[in-house]
Amino acid sequence: MKRGFGSDNHSGVCPEVLQAIASANTEHALAYGDDEYCERVSRLFKAHFGEQAEVYFVFNGTGANVLNIDAMCRSHHAVICAESAHINVDECGAPQRIVGCRLLTVPTTDGKLTPELVKRHLHGFGFEHHSQPRAISITQSTELGTLYTVEEIKALADLAHSYDMFLHVDGARLANAAVALGCSFRAMTTDAGVDCLSFGGTKNGLLMGESAVILNPELNKELKYRRKQMGQLCSKMRFMAVQFEAYFGNAQNMQIPLWRKNAEHSNQMAQILYNAIKGVPQAHVVYPVQVNSVFVRLPRMVWQELQNDYFFYDWEEDGLPMDYGKMKAVPTDVVRWMCSFDTTEEDVNNFISALKRRLAVIS
Amino acid sequence: MKRGFGSDNHSGVCPEVLQAIASANTEHALAYGDDEYCERVSRLFKAHFGEQAEVYFVFNGTGANVLNIDAMCRSHHAVICAESAHINVDECGAPQRIVGCRLLTVPTTDGKLTPELVKRHLHGFGFEHHSQPRAISITQSTELGTLYTVEEIKALADLAHSYDMFLHVDGARLANAAVALGCSFRAMTTDAGVDCLSFGGTKNGLLMGESAVILNPELNKELKYRRKQMGQLCSKMRFMAVQFEAYFGNAQNMQIPLWRKNAEHSNQMAQILYNAIKGVPQAHVVYPVQVNSVFVRLPRMVWQELQNDYFFYDWEEDGLPMDYGKMKAVPTDVVRWMCSFDTTEEDVNNFISALKRRLAVIS
Amino acid sequence: MKRGFGSDNHSGVCPEVLQAIASANTEHALAYGDDEYCERVSRLFKAHFGEQAEVYFVFNGTGANVLNIDAMCRSHHAVICAESAHINVDECGAPQRIVGCRLLTVPTTDGKLTPELVKRHLHGFGFEHHSQPRAISITQSTELGTLYTVEEIKALADLAHSYDMFLHVDGARLANAAVALGCSFRAMTTDAGVDCLSFGGTKNGLLMGESAVILNPELNKELKYRRKQMGQLCSKMRFMAVQFEAYFGNAQNMQIPLWRKNAEHSNQMAQILYNAIKGVPQAHVVYPVQVNSVFVRLPRMVWQELQNDYFFYDWEEDGLPMDYGKMKAVPTDVVRWMCSFDTTEEDVNNFISALKRRLAVIS
Amino acid sequence: MKRGFGSDNHSGVCPEVLQAIASANTEHALAYGDDEYCERVSRLFKAHFGEQAEVYFVFNGTGANVLNIDAMCRSHHAVICAESAHINVDECGAPQRIVGCRLLTVPTTDGKLTPELVKRHLHGFGFEHHSQPRAISITQSTELGTLYTVEEIKALADLAHSYDMFLHVDGARLANAAVALGCSFRAMTTDAGVDCLSFGGTKNGLLMGESAVILNPELNKELKYRRKQMGQLCSKMRFMAVQFEAYFGNAQNMQIPLWRKNAEHSNQMAQILYNAIKGVPQAHVVYPVQVNSVFVRLPRMVWQELQNDYFFYDWEEDGLPMDYGKMKAVPTDVVRWMCSFDTTEEDVNNFISALKRRLAVIS
Repeated sequence: MKRGFGSDNHSGVCPEVLQAIASANTEHALAYGDDEYCERVSRLFKAHFGEQAEVYFVFNGTGANVLNIDAMCRSHHAVICAESAHINVDECGAPQRIVGCRLLTVPTTDGKLTPELVKRHLHGFGFEHHSQPRAISITQSTELGTLYTVEEIKALADLAHSYDMFLHVDGARLANAAVALGCSFRAMTTDAGVDCLSFGGTKNGLLMGESAVILNPELNKELKYRRKQMGQLCSKMRFMAVQFEAYFGNAQNMQIPLWRKNAEHSNQMAQILYNAIKGVPQAHVVYPVQVNSVFVRLPRMVWQELQNDYFFYDWEEDGLPMDYGKMKAVPTDVVRWMCSFDTTEEDVNNFISALKRRLAVIS
Repeated sequence: MKRGFGSDNHSGVCPEVLQAIASANTEHALAYGDDEYCERVSRLFKAHFGEQAEVYFVFNGTGANVLNIDAMCRSHHAVICAESAHINVDECGAPQRIVGCRLLTVPTTDGKLTPELVKRHLHGFGFEHHSQPRAISITQSTELGTLYTVEEIKALADLAHSYDMFLHVDGARLANAAVALGCSFRAMTTDAGVDCLSFGGTKNGLLMGESAVILNPELNKELKYRRKQMGQLCSKMRFMAVQFEAYFGNAQNMQIPLWRKNAEHSNQMAQILYNAIKGVPQAHVVYPVQVNSVFVRLPRMVWQELQNDYFFYDWEEDGLPMDYGKMKAVPTDVVRWMCSFDTTEEDVNNFISALKRRLAVIS
Repeated sequence: MKRGFGSDNHSGVCPEVLQAIASANTEHALAYGDDEYCERVSRLFKAHFGEQAEVYFVFNGTGANVLNIDAMCRSHHAVICAESAHINVDECGAPQRIVGCRLLTVPTTDGKLTPELVKRHLHGFGFEHHSQPRAISITQSTELGTLYTVEEIKALADLAHSYDMFLHVDGARLANAAVALGCSFRAMTTDAGVDCLSFGGTKNGLLMGESAVILNPELNKELKYRRKQMGQLCSKMRFMAVQFEAYFGNAQNMQIPLWRKNAEHSNQMAQILYNAIKGVPQAHVVYPVQVNSVFVRLPRMVWQELQNDYFFYDWEEDGLPMDYGKMKAVPTDVVRWMCSFDTTEEDVNNFISALKRRLAVIS
Repeated sequence: MKRGFGSDNHSGVCPEVLQAIASANTEHALAYGDDEYCERVSRLFKAHFGEQAEVYFVFNGTGANVLNIDAMCRSHHAVICAESAHINVDECGAPQRIVGCRLLTVPTTDGKLTPELVKRHLHGFGFEHHSQPRAISITQSTELGTLYTVEEIKALADLAHSYDMFLHVDGARLANAAVALGCSFRAMTTDAGVDCLSFGGTKNGLLMGESAVILNPELNKELKYRRKQMGQLCSKMRFMAVQFEAYFGNAQNMQIPLWRKNAEHSNQMAQILYNAIKGVPQAHVVYPVQVNSVFVRLPRMVWQELQNDYFFYDWEEDGLPMDYGKMKAVPTDVVRWMCSFDTTEEDVNNFISALKRRLAVIS
């Protein structure tokens, strides 16, 4: 398959990451995280997120999100999130099955929660018939490629804490957000009052490495048992840890961390893509292009033909939006193009050419 | 506490039901449903719902709803329901905890699903990232006191079956609906294509008796184990069965079944209440009054003062509706008044007088 | 069905209990326990179990046991219990499904745990691969009709607490135990260090009434939500509460509490039964007869014929004991005869006669 | 850490496996298994296990075991397994939490189930109070380093099927078993009637690769959703698939498959270790040494001192065996030494020398 715009996990692995794995492949190491590699990388997470940060390596984003929800919630609790949140639409109901809790969703225009939107669900405390709101979960950058400012995150954290609730960040693409905002991981998370974080690397060049980073120590209490019991404890964990070591370390022959290099690149490719189509009359970019994805409304015939050559997702998969006035679902004809750490300018240019050829046909 | 308008389960027990319990209190009977009383009453359910109907007595409405969902769904499935559905807002997340599945909710104007509204969620079949839509759940009469016609139920059943899905009816107040529609239980359920039913009696005069009635035999397969495992198997079950025998039988000294007598009465009380206030300028009845409840928008001061003398619920408990234009939650000042089988005309008149006195003060 | 020896929940309801239900059937009461009856009876539980005791009414023994386990344990915890414990063999896996935890079972000779037996499982603390032992659960009186002395309970409570664990008592037949030991409920529970209790009345004359009694206040924290979410919250709860009021109150025309009268009677009937057969050569009583049950080994032909006239259980239902020397399962031919509050001396005498007739045939 | 005898997952990764990962790291591939690598390797599994075999890659052994149990069982079912089974003692209760089912355990002398041992639990079918036996789970090679013959597996499969049950094999070390028995994977599994298999590679040289292999097609029905929902769906799955491709392929410069080479080596190292100590008076080898582990009873002082230099586990972690005659737990002083694909003869010889020095001191 040639490089396309389907997802940032269609790409492979950074050479630095493969090298780190090979380098750790010497002698024996205790399994399940009790090894010197994991200890070293745990300290690295503390350096990035603050001394209280505790990292729990897990296998994938589902694992990271569900473990964090499990750290915050028991089954009678509820998590408030955007309707478009990955935990709501793309985990096949994992939080419900594994934690047993309820998700209280809010429709949004851009994938972002606000205190006003959250407040709608801040009711029913102490009333045993209602799932008790216990956490707010946001995605940074969002599933729609938009960003929370640090201040917006702080406002949500403050709101959560004022109700004795927690704030979780799904950071499957936190690196793309950090680059776009020009801030550190810590500024967006620990310092903004975030209680726990899904910190992902797989979408930005790792082989297989995700983590739950607990920033509020009270959430650590029983978490190691919970991780094991939900099947997210890796035996040869050193090979997971060293991927993050490479990720935080510098890119080959450069004075810039690998995560930053990769995220800057994929964000930049999305900008090139955006710039190439923003003036095109039949292509309507529907969300601000802030990180590595571009969401475009196109004539259906065009995007369906383009899919013959390039893999990408239309964005109607989780159900069409409802027009409640007309009482019917409305096809959106919105597609998502996602750039990756290994997307090249040539990839983008070829893609744009193919798109324009098809648009020319129908105009 | 005097008789109020808080809920139809604030009332007590019909004398006929207490008498039935006392009459069954002779000698021994096998526990857990293997007794002649349960056998007899199971046949009675078949008489009302068709030969294929199998009744599973359970303790309460949560039990009936969750058992039915469990009959239809495994944890990777989803149930489509109205946002206002009891299973969504009033079970403290029981379906999520006990079945582990997801609820796909739809905002409605009157508590009723339509095929158009349901279709929004009929996506993602075969896609493992998405909870698989498996059931539609409606409430008859709805939580907002509205009714589905038999044809509307049929349409939803047909839609469900065309997607290899099931239709569940939460019939905690099915008797009120039957009376209002002037049809039999069977016409609204079995004959309309309903697959399983929560058939309740507690809100209409029973002491403690609810049931899951399986109308689609394929759903029976493992259900007896599931009921036991979720803690809904009653030991002295004869005393539950005979309540339903009294319920289906005639009321004392009357040629009308007890369920009908009670439901007709509570529906009628709601009509009296409705008629008394429908011309009152400051009281706005917000849903059609079709069964035994009246939902009214009133000045906050009025309903809060009235609550000093009468217990009833304001209807903001599950979160205010959002005004997405202004991005803020909006107090509705809607209250619910619920009539019961033992509400008297005098109760209603006194209540209306009290209301009018308070309205007079502010006008 | 005539009165037999199948189970103490084959009997019906005490007249005092039915009367209490009828007496509470006046006017309205708030649902779900927020009524004056429940408040009054909650105080009664405090009078019996100490000021810190909080009662949670539930529907059945499964509900009481699972709610208590849920109060003590999360899913990564384990409960240590006898292999013969009801929570292990007779709940169809309810603790596993609802709490998700593990049961660590111990084979016993008489249904009773001892500190020595428990210690076998007191390993693996802090090791995330192992379910963490969190609770000890005992049954008083046991499923085999045997009793713990107060001192034995204290020893188990002390052991539990020394490991930061809890002690639960399944007291489905606590009244029978109290009568047999000649002590108060409190002496066997609160004062012995028990943390939580399943306190049952159904097997001793109630219609339908069980409860989880929390004696260690730290276990109350989130329990009301947990009860609701697992489907054990009764709507017309006053009718459950008043059954316990009658139970703690005096029996009709007597100066003795109802629970005591009933339990004394069923215990005494078991003694009569025991005395009548203890000298019979072919009948071997296999456990001490301390409460209301008699376990006897009989020739298979005899007990199977006797079952034609009387309902009772053979005790091989949960799997035969293994003879590991011969590597095969061994039929036990042990049957259980259970006396009830309404068993009469005549019942016992007739039963003994029938047994002796059959024994005579084969000898 | 130098090479020790702690576990076969303390070793690293085979060079062939790392090479396969590097080779797959070109261009893009669809995520979540919809890529050509996964398709190719799925066919490879069919070649090894039969055309009906379907492989589900998962992250770890917990994932493979729990997914298989989930394929066979719902929560009201039970799995019969040896008390020493990994699913019973080393998953922190994952089957209970994720599937919600019960494990029915059997004490064994050598970690192996037999039809006779299993039969003890083949009771209570159709009785809703009892978890319904639904699967037998065995480990090949067992947790105690012993082996089932093909005939023994067939006998258990036949028994399972005669009760409409399934047979699962936990094959975390299936390669070691295949080498020891001199038979193919298929002979021990598909051809012996096994319904589903946890097929592991991590303990035999893979980086991170386990799988559930479904041999009975009826178990596939909803499994892809179940895998996703339990958090075991890998995004960049090609890198998992190609590890198995290397595993089934030939070892570097050899005409022997990698799995066989590695397993033969670790088995052989265990034999060397065994031969070196079998005559030593104070060292008692407690189980037949059939694969890559040696279980030895040693004076406590000796093994504890040896642990200063070498990491290995004592085998008392899951609770001491009970001496029911004396009613006390008995320390076993049994330790486990596990050889790995990279254990060298020099490692073994040094270890033996260290052991003998310590034994000499105390003799």
